[in-house]
Amino acid sequence: MRLHHQNQNMQLIDGRELANTIKEEIAVTVAAYVAEGNRPPHLAAVLVGADPASQVYVRNKVKSCEKVGFNSTLIEKGPETTESELLEIVDKLNKDPEIDGFIVQLPLPKHINEQKITLAIEPKKDVDGFHPTNFGRMAQGLPTYLPATPFGILQMLDRNNIDISGKECVVLGRSNIVGTPISILLSRKASPGNATVVLCHSRTKNVAEHCRRADVLIVALGIPEYVTADMVKEGAVVIDVGINRIDDASRKRGYRLAGDVKFDEVAPKCSFITPVPGGVGPMTVTALLMNTLKSCRKEVYD
Amino acid sequence: MRLHHQNQNMQLIDGRELANTIKEEIAVTVAAYVAEGNRPPHLAAVLVGADPASQVYVRNKVKSCEKVGFNSTLIEKGPETTESELLEIVDKLNKDPEIDGFIVQLPLPKHINEQKITLAIEPKKDVDGFHPTNFGRMAQGLPTYLPATPFGILQMLDRNNIDISGKECVVLGRSNIVGTPISILLSRKASPGNATVVLCHSRTKNVAEHCRRADVLIVALGIPEYVTADMVKEGAVVIDVGINRIDDASRKRGYRLAGDVKFDEVAPKCSFITPVPGGVGPMTVTALLMNTLKSCRKEVYD
Repeated sequence: MRLHHQNQNMQLIDGRELANTIKEEIAVTVAAYVAEGNRPPHLAAVLVGADPASQVYVRNKVKSCEKVGFNSTLIEKGPETTESELLEIVDKLNKDPEIDGFIVQLPLPKHINEQKITLAIEPKKDVDGFHPTNFGRMAQGLPTYLPATPFGILQMLDRNNIDISGKECVVLGRSNIVGTPISILLSRKASPGNATVVLCHSRTKNVAEHCRRADVLIVALGIPEYVTADMVKEGAVVIDVGINRIDDASRKRGYRLAGDVKFDEVAPKCSFITPVPGGVGPMTVTALLMNTLKSCRKEVYD
Repeated sequence: MRLHHQNQNMQLIDGRELANTIKEEIAVTVAAYVAEGNRPPHLAAVLVGADPASQVYVRNKVKSCEKVGFNSTLIEKGPETTESELLEIVDKLNKDPEIDGFIVQLPLPKHINEQKITLAIEPKKDVDGFHPTNFGRMAQGLPTYLPATPFGILQMLDRNNIDISGKECVVLGRSNIVGTPISILLSRKASPGNATVVLCHSRTKNVAEHCRRADVLIVALGIPEYVTADMVKEGAVVIDVGINRIDDASRKRGYRLAGDVKFDEVAPKCSFITPVPGGVGPMTVTALLMNTLKSCRKEVYD
């Protein structure tokens, strides 16, 4: 971490450390649960095709399961798998009483309709929280499986005792997996929650002005280093969801990773900020584990 | 209407007139649909108990069905109806192929769990748009049944050619039936939509300041005449969802109806404003008709 002129009060939110803490907590809970005579939570992951990034993600998820004492099943299928074959796999997993939850890793090969697959997953087992039923439950404040990134952000706020009630939260980006759900969650009557939320996106006219009013700024645009120091209020909390590759000839691999926030100049103004990498990213797998545990213990659905 | 110092450019959005226009359009569509040899759309309404306001609402809905050429069924049950009896009625309606959609009028007697009933309604037939599955589809931008009041507001904006893209929309109130869904809809990539939305509620600190920045102000708080002239920008669009009774000895019935906006002083500053009564209220039943028609024509679900 290269940090110049660092604000003495600035606190870095370490996503790796927090993710490990939460995983340890889950492992303790699972051990006690199994000691009571229960079968351990069981997550299945379906990977279609040979995308190397997807392979890494899925294997990380499976590895995390093992770490916390879950059972896990990895189903790998070739890129020629048809939509109806995948729907059959989903149907089998929906019905298998030994499986508490499962995910189908996205993106899928182009000949498969992702939305159709998402809708085919039984909401009860949708531990990614992508099914409209779970998304709607979230928006209505009912028990549900939270999607990974919003879950990670809530945990980061909560575990750092960042009180957002009555605060102005500006969210940049309105995607279905980050911006829209986190904007809904932060404004809900809950804790963390009760914030006044402003949802900005590509059509917003005066983004910088909105940002400068933000007590909490959540950035999920996918535009490298979009947020600069002049856009951030002194003492703001900044959560950077972006993870972008920037060409960098000085690095052996030819690029460096950057968030949507110009970290070096923004960090000194913040009370809290997440780094990239090592911020929100590592937190996402914990959501999956939490949701699978919830499913196993029937905390969302009977 | 008593309007003093009226802004020459101010336009009143007449909800009664617009609702009638939409109903006439639906009637034309239904007539053509039936002329093609199809059965007319069929809405059922379930009323439990003897609440006089609910009786009026439900009968209005049934009457509106007749007006546009729908079939309708009214199921009235006494206040002693049990939850399991009501669940049985819901189950029957879910399975009845002659019924395209149905509503269970709220509120229900206290011994019946409203949430349980809402969740028991087959999403395909949930023409109130209250089921989490339909709510989630709305939030994710999928085809769905929009809840009544948000639907009415969108129609009012659309039919008056009020372009909200890139505009600042401030929503006061975060209820599940108005504030939360309309805040989601207005920020979606759609038309009407693409607005920058600020969702304010009881915990928001500087409500008046937010309101003064609003190009479009949507008020759904249930606090009579909360929004005053000093809170509204010159030329703003104001949609008043509130409908409150205020004691008024000068009226024969002892009260007058007032919205959440102090109409007489706010109206002169607006480009568009909805009156109360006769604004958003009359629009809500059109949502129900539109949704039933959509269901009949399988435009949301196969």
